[in-house]
Amino acid sequence: MLTTICLDADDTLWHNERLFQFTQERFASLLSDYAARDHVADRLRDAERRNLERYGYGIKGFTLSMIEAALQVTENRVPGEVIAELIACGQKMLREPIELLNGVEETVRTLSADFTLLLITKGDLLDQERKLAQSGLGELFDGIEIVSEKTSEVYLGIFTGRGIEPRHALMAGNSLKSDVIPAISAGGWGVHVPCSPAWDLDEADAPMHHERFREIAALSDLPSVIKEICSNM
Amino acid sequence: MLTTICLDADDTLWHNERLFQFTQERFASLLSDYAARDHVADRLRDAERRNLERYGYGIKGFTLSMIEAALQVTENRVPGEVIAELIACGQKMLREPIELLNGVEETVRTLSADFTLLLITKGDLLDQERKLAQSGLGELFDGIEIVSEKTSEVYLGIFTGRGIEPRHALMAGNSLKSDVIPAISAGGWGVHVPCSPAWDLDEADAPMHHERFREIAALSDLPSVIKEICSNM
Repeated sequence: MLTTICLDADDTLWHNERLFQFTQERFASLLSDYAARDHVADRLRDAERRNLERYGYGIKGFTLSMIEAALQVTENRVPGEVIAELIACGQKMLREPIELLNGVEETVRTLSADFTLLLITKGDLLDQERKLAQSGLGELFDGIEIVSEKTSEVYLGIFTGRGIEPRHALMAGNSLKSDVIPAISAGGWGVHVPCSPAWDLDEADAPMHHERFREIAALSDLPSVIKEICSNM
Repeated sequence: MLTTICLDADDTLWHNERLFQFTQERFASLLSDYAARDHVADRLRDAERRNLERYGYGIKGFTLSMIEAALQVTENRVPGEVIAELIACGQKMLREPIELLNGVEETVRTLSADFTLLLITKGDLLDQERKLAQSGLGELFDGIEIVSEKTSEVYLGIFTGRGIEPRHALMAGNSLKSDVIPAISAGGWGVHVPCSPAWDLDEADAPMHHERFREIAALSDLPSVIKEICSNM
């Protein structure tokens, strides 16, 4: 039997990536006097990729990457007003109210009645806590894990630290790379719930033929997939 | 009896604040053409204070506050080269090797043999994990808690979440405000281990006459204070 259901947060419970994409558009507009949009977008993506291991995930690191890319694209000639605007964009992102994805509240409520329910998310600690508090879903989870990276070791540590047999645990989220593949590698089940838009730096191939992999169209399909898995166990 | 000893990390196990102060000096030098050192330092402190609830603790938020203060002090006329240098300063801080405070390794090793040992720290998730990994002390702790804020509720949550009676737990650290006072409010013991330099935004009065408060000169004095506490329990 499955005993433990783990859920990702950003773009699984609430919208997130669209806020980054909106800010990237704003970034490209602010720098449109200096370089072509595509070039500007590429430099920002390069800075993000370069800085991931320094800054980790989240809005603070993203803001620093925007400033770094702005300096690079303009050969340090970017006006102070633009830098100030980029800082303001980051602070606006940190204030942005969350919006739950369709059907999330009912699904989380249903799951919390029958399973040990864990939230496993990465990003800036304070910002993830803010969003969870705002979601009103915090009380439905039996545990919250905010981690710096979602590797199979991290999943295994969470499972064993709580005395959970990996094969009795299922992780569902929008990221194959962070939610699905490492959870399966740790011995658990992985359910992919794609979300649009997706993040460029987060691509991976689906483990289509793995027996512990499932894909669903929306989180509201999760209870029936869980039923199917349990009936065949 | 005490069963659980909790330790802070930055400026309790290893040096930290001196790195911030070094970078603040560099910041003031970089902006010395625009304003007096004291004015520059005050604007940075204002930005840090203003941004704490947005960014939380850690180097990424500090770097963003330096950039914000640099724009403010120069009325947005700060050259791009200086902004680039501030970003480089932040990245240098994130790479800086840690240096353990005197006697820390032996003390942590001694305590780990006799007690449930927890590390409770705030700051950027990834950076705190990096420093702990580098310290070589990680294996000696039974649990690591990286939190966004150290309130009495947070301490109580950590204690009860692990089935620990607060009066059987002791928290030791360099910050009266974050380590000592809230741990005592949560029902535990609080031991202050002052460290120099101290952080301006972290001041509080010592609860001198509280029965569960102690002050020691160095972490290596902690085992004997624990012995004294236990012998009177």
